Amino acid sequence: MVKRRPVFQKLPENYLFPEIQRRKNLFLEENPTTSLISLGIGDTVKPLPSYIARQMERAAAALATTEGYHGYGKEQGLEALCKKICDRFYPNQIDPSEVFISDGAKCDIGRLQMLFGGQAKVAVQDPAYPVYLEGSILQGGETLTFMPCLPETNFFPDFRELPPHDLIYICHPNNPIGHAYTHEQLAKLVDYALEHHAIIIFDVAYASFITDPSLPKTIYEIPGAEKVAIEVGSFSKMAGFSGVRLGWTVVPKALKYDEGDLVWNDWMRQSTTIYNGTSFVVQQAGIAALEEEGWKEVQAILDIYRANAQKLLTAFKQLGHSVYGGKNAPYLWVEFPGRDSWDVFQEFLEERNLIVTPGKGFGPSGEHFIRLSAFAHEEQIDAAISVLQSGGVSLTT
Amino acid sequence: MVKRRPVFQKLPENYLFPEIQRRKNLFLEENPTTSLISLGIGDTVKPLPSYIARQMERAAAALATTEGYHGYGKEQGLEALCKKICDRFYPNQIDPSEVFISDGAKCDIGRLQMLFGGQAKVAVQDPAYPVYLEGSILQGGETLTFMPCLPETNFFPDFRELPPHDLIYICHPNNPIGHAYTHEQLAKLVDYALEHHAIIIFDVAYASFITDPSLPKTIYEIPGAEKVAIEVGSFSKMAGFSGVRLGWTVVPKALKYDEGDLVWNDWMRQSTTIYNGTSFVVQQAGIAALEEEGWKEVQAILDIYRANAQKLLTAFKQLGHSVYGGKNAPYLWVEFPGRDSWDVFQEFLEERNLIVTPGKGFGPSGEHFIRLSAFAHEEQIDAAISVLQSGGVSLTT
Repeated sequence: MVKRRPVFQKLPENYLFPEIQRRKNLFLEENPTTSLISLGIGDTVKPLPSYIARQMERAAAALATTEGYHGYGKEQGLEALCKKICDRFYPNQIDPSEVFISDGAKCDIGRLQMLFGGQAKVAVQDPAYPVYLEGSILQGGETLTFMPCLPETNFFPDFRELPPHDLIYICHPNNPIGHAYTHEQLAKLVDYALEHHAIIIFDVAYASFITDPSLPKTIYEIPGAEKVAIEVGSFSKMAGFSGVRLGWTVVPKALKYDEGDLVWNDWMRQSTTIYNGTSFVVQQAGIAALEEEGWKEVQAILDIYRANAQKLLTAFKQLGHSVYGGKNAPYLWVEFPGRDSWDVFQEFLEERNLIVTPGKGFGPSGEHFIRLSAFAHEEQIDAAISVLQSGGVSLTT
Repeated sequence: MVKRRPVFQKLPENYLFPEIQRRKNLFLEENPTTSLISLGIGDTVKPLPSYIARQMERAAAALATTEGYHGYGKEQGLEALCKKICDRFYPNQIDPSEVFISDGAKCDIGRLQMLFGGQAKVAVQDPAYPVYLEGSILQGGETLTFMPCLPETNFFPDFRELPPHDLIYICHPNNPIGHAYTHEQLAKLVDYALEHHAIIIFDVAYASFITDPSLPKTIYEIPGAEKVAIEVGSFSKMAGFSGVRLGWTVVPKALKYDEGDLVWNDWMRQSTTIYNGTSFVVQQAGIAALEEEGWKEVQAILDIYRANAQKLLTAFKQLGHSVYGGKNAPYLWVEFPGRDSWDVFQEFLEERNLIVTPGKGFGPSGEHFIRLSAFAHEEQIDAAISVLQSGGVSLTT
């Protein structure tokens, strides 16, 4: 007598992007000759750097040889890739044995939620990437607290007000806000976790967009973080791997449960039990991305997205909007005081033929905002800006 | 106050393969000039078919072009691959929308266990692949029943004796036994599930080894199975993808919970929430494997492993052992009546310099058996057999 797990009824409707699609289709049915420009989707568009693609080709070709064939690998990933990740992102902070390679941040966040289970009291940023909340609901989590992130508090949760929680999800720089936190802010986060024996799930999927040298690029720049923080990284936005699928999770050996057992031991045990390693070819592509030649190409593409963000930032400011993010992140967060964010979405669609993302889709504190994405070709950004500057002339062709 | 989930203390020590490694290392320390031949590991060794590797190379190269770039795909996989899987394995049985592409059977079994949660009463074959039991323990499952699979019952569980359970794990052909079931046996399984409203998790990771045309290759050959069975498939052993990572799961839309809701809906919701799709390059390799040219190459490699299995079967029978499996599967199950399977392992190691797998490592009913794997190069199999036939002369070099 197999019964449905009640958690599936508690999940909110998967509403945001399907609803955008529905409204877009409706508009195009009524306006079949109109071209729309999308600033709505958080997905990379630039081709994979050629050095990385070539190394991936070589890895695929090697598999067809007796010497180069590679079957099962360690569930936690190739040592060479773990080491490269440490050298590139965590010099003198993290040991390669503390790095676990994954098929992406979203998948590993789901597995981390399973590691801690439904009894954990969870606090998530509001607005936030949906998997933090929805994955916790899937585990049967009962205490799920929104931490409002609003302009008046510099988009940082007020940890003085937060009662004890077990897991704190922080995305830095933040999606959807596009805001990066300072050392001082993250020190407050680590202090909270140390005081309440909480564990921070620190999502750095967008950290490669940070250019301001005064900003931290990993939680482990904060003293004591290795005792309270798991960091989840991704090649998706950094190196255009959203379809290639590669990420990593750092579980420091200094991170302990309340009883003193190492979290690392259980994470390793869980990984070997229900994961089976990331594709060899994909891991080779990851190594290539972190080598000098690949890394240079990766930076060139990041620079294009960064320039897109800067252009959008300038344009929206010139139009008199309050705009946040866009400086050390690929997203901008534009305020429309008092306005329903779906109404703003509809106005952009109908009057400017632009697709944006209504902020409410990321949580209640996203109301009165829209998110803009810099993941577009330069011509699309330029076209969007000229529509904006011409006051909304339709792009009807 | 993050507490350790009690389930981690219930997991058995990850003992089998580390213990084999430990004993092997110890032996090699004492016998540094001895060469060992491994018949113990269930991992492919033959190079990837060249057509498949070339198509994977092409997919990687395409990602470096503006037109060929591919970001996020659907979580459930490329439609072209889902369709190829239906055409190849489920003609007129399963719709492509019922096929979900994964990064491998083990990972998807873990996700299926999460779908049904810890309240499900689970029955697993004994002996069996560890993830069925261990993944269920990770979900907090309390009712976990072993179904003994012994020679006297043709290695098929006695469903007349089994009280109502929610999830029944069956591997066909079975790992570690190497035994494939008949239509009549699987009809009994489906009858049990229909009678008790149970769901079958049917693992066909080795079904491509079946050559006997009278044997079923999928559970959906059994009438009514679409109402009670989820089938999990894999490219690992079929096409040498153990390091490439590709599998699939069939969730028929006819499969319902006791309350009448479609399991498909929740599986789709869970997949979109905590999975993010399988690597584009890997999926392209999967398509290539199922195309005529790739499929032909795949069969040629399967034939090598089949011939290996046949040679081992003949050799062990000639030596007077009771040997099971090996005919429609890459594994053989050799009986040593009354003997401790670790003692048999040690004897093979010390006297014949062969690595085998002690049956007890797969469950209590594996005692008095060892598993042999046909996943080896032909020369290794021939060398192993000549050692066996010469009565155990050491291969000391």
